[in-house]
Amino acid sequence: MYIGIDLGGTNLVVGLVNDDGEILERITKKTRVKNGATEIIKDMIEAIKEIIDKTHAEIKSIGIGIPGLVDKENGVVSECVNLNWHGIHIKKEIEKELNTSVFIDNDATVASLAEYVKGSLRNTDTSILITLGTGIGGGFIINKKVYSGANGIASEIGHMVLGENFYNCNCGRNGCFETFSSASAIVKYASKLLEENKEKENSELVKFYNSNEEITSKIVFDFAKKNDEYANIIVERFSKYIAKAIVNLMVIIDPEIISFGGGVSHAGEFMLKKIREEFEKERIFKNVVPPKFVLAEMGNDAGIVGAAFLNKYQ
Amino acid sequence: MYIGIDLGGTNLVVGLVNDDGEILERITKKTRVKNGATEIIKDMIEAIKEIIDKTHAEIKSIGIGIPGLVDKENGVVSECVNLNWHGIHIKKEIEKELNTSVFIDNDATVASLAEYVKGSLRNTDTSILITLGTGIGGGFIINKKVYSGANGIASEIGHMVLGENFYNCNCGRNGCFETFSSASAIVKYASKLLEENKEKENSELVKFYNSNEEITSKIVFDFAKKNDEYANIIVERFSKYIAKAIVNLMVIIDPEIISFGGGVSHAGEFMLKKIREEFEKERIFKNVVPPKFVLAEMGNDAGIVGAAFLNKYQ
Repeated sequence: MYIGIDLGGTNLVVGLVNDDGEILERITKKTRVKNGATEIIKDMIEAIKEIIDKTHAEIKSIGIGIPGLVDKENGVVSECVNLNWHGIHIKKEIEKELNTSVFIDNDATVASLAEYVKGSLRNTDTSILITLGTGIGGGFIINKKVYSGANGIASEIGHMVLGENFYNCNCGRNGCFETFSSASAIVKYASKLLEENKEKENSELVKFYNSNEEITSKIVFDFAKKNDEYANIIVERFSKYIAKAIVNLMVIIDPEIISFGGGVSHAGEFMLKKIREEFEKERIFKNVVPPKFVLAEMGNDAGIVGAAFLNKYQ
Repeated sequence: MYIGIDLGGTNLVVGLVNDDGEILERITKKTRVKNGATEIIKDMIEAIKEIIDKTHAEIKSIGIGIPGLVDKENGVVSECVNLNWHGIHIKKEIEKELNTSVFIDNDATVASLAEYVKGSLRNTDTSILITLGTGIGGGFIINKKVYSGANGIASEIGHMVLGENFYNCNCGRNGCFETFSSASAIVKYASKLLEENKEKENSELVKFYNSNEEITSKIVFDFAKKNDEYANIIVERFSKYIAKAIVNLMVIIDPEIISFGGGVSHAGEFMLKKIREEFEKERIFKNVVPPKFVLAEMGNDAGIVGAAFLNKYQ
């Protein structure tokens, strides 16, 4: 049995996972960000003890998915903006208390491992998960193992520069992938486009915007599914930059499968169809088999299952 | 002992390499491109036999660096534009004749392996060679092995899109790395810039251009070393896009070292200094150790030595 922990900015979920990747027990707690790292780590340890007391399970290892940068060799969270963690020795803290090996990695990497073990990336050697959320994350499986690079910043594909954009990325640069195709990017571009076209009330999306309703990536996709002119423009731009990113990932990593997860991916097959259309325009090396594009399958379980299996796929 | 073959568009070099990566014998032949694949493969086999006859060496394996796309699992050259090869079963042909295992890979990948075994990338787990020539190639060492992806197109970083450019890439897309920072890209941008500034004869480079002398990347760097205003603009643009490419490679591969080879890299430490300056402007994740930037060391031996060791680092 393994413990997998999904540490998010809102909730902290501790799960007991068997060798088949099934979650047998699960404890969810609020992430008490204001209390600081020490208290949050205590909450984790408590939840683990509770699960062990209840199930008498023998735990082989503990894995944790971290929403930030990780020095996995030393088990240190180097940087985690949302939790305000910098240089937190989480591995040492928990091992001291529980006498069980602890493994940590970035949350998107952990999610890609879950997809590899039980989800959309199974039966591949080399594949990629792209998480389309507020930002864009990436997780790489390379030669059947998780890949995090020399310093734990590999697969941070949200900051791959693809072109020029009308606003800068939080990282300070211009043209990062996540400023074109994340949920926030969709909202930013939609607001700009709809503001510039306020008077075009033949578009239902323009009308919606003019009524001061909140624009979200879901709203944009919902209107695009109804073939709204302006929603189509926004989705097309989103898909064009996904396609550019995919071709870059093809000529760098050359994966068998690219899976899409995160909130935006709930637009489902409609989104995949748009991405495939734009990919055909961007595609090079046409006599090479392109990666398959699929949707992530593990949903909310990805963080727990992937973390639980970190030990096995280093 | 190993045979390493460097197959170029002009010459074909066959070398005998020992376990320490030393080249003990070397035969150079013209690559008779017009005669087609079968004849060129015969030339290779003849040279190998000649070396064996002369040295009585026992050959463990034969490796070949190919200037194009390779299906290494099946030993097939999928696409090699310069040689006009498409779907050439080179491994089968040579193994049939010599009864020794044959390994093939892309030439930039082969060069990166040579740098890893004996040159600028030794003692690393994960590192990258960027070859700045007519085009831009890349070779990746990942976890101490050559990395070529699922279809042999990984590390084709010359076609990573970085932004918009004033002309299209041969691949049909706009904004590929090699349209900004290859030798040809330097010449293309120089010609445009100097034509637009023909009258600025206080620049020695403009004068040189106006006298109808041929502009090359070496000429541009030579004038930049003398602090010529227009040469500086060209080198700065070249370096800016190298820096963008490096940051993309950092957030995707996260290597320990990036080594620069190919003709343009003969500009040496001067070029590295310019690249480092631009990298400092583009850099993100500032508390993460950045890759070291170095010059390739293996020169013309890279193709032979890397090919010879393909067997060992699959």
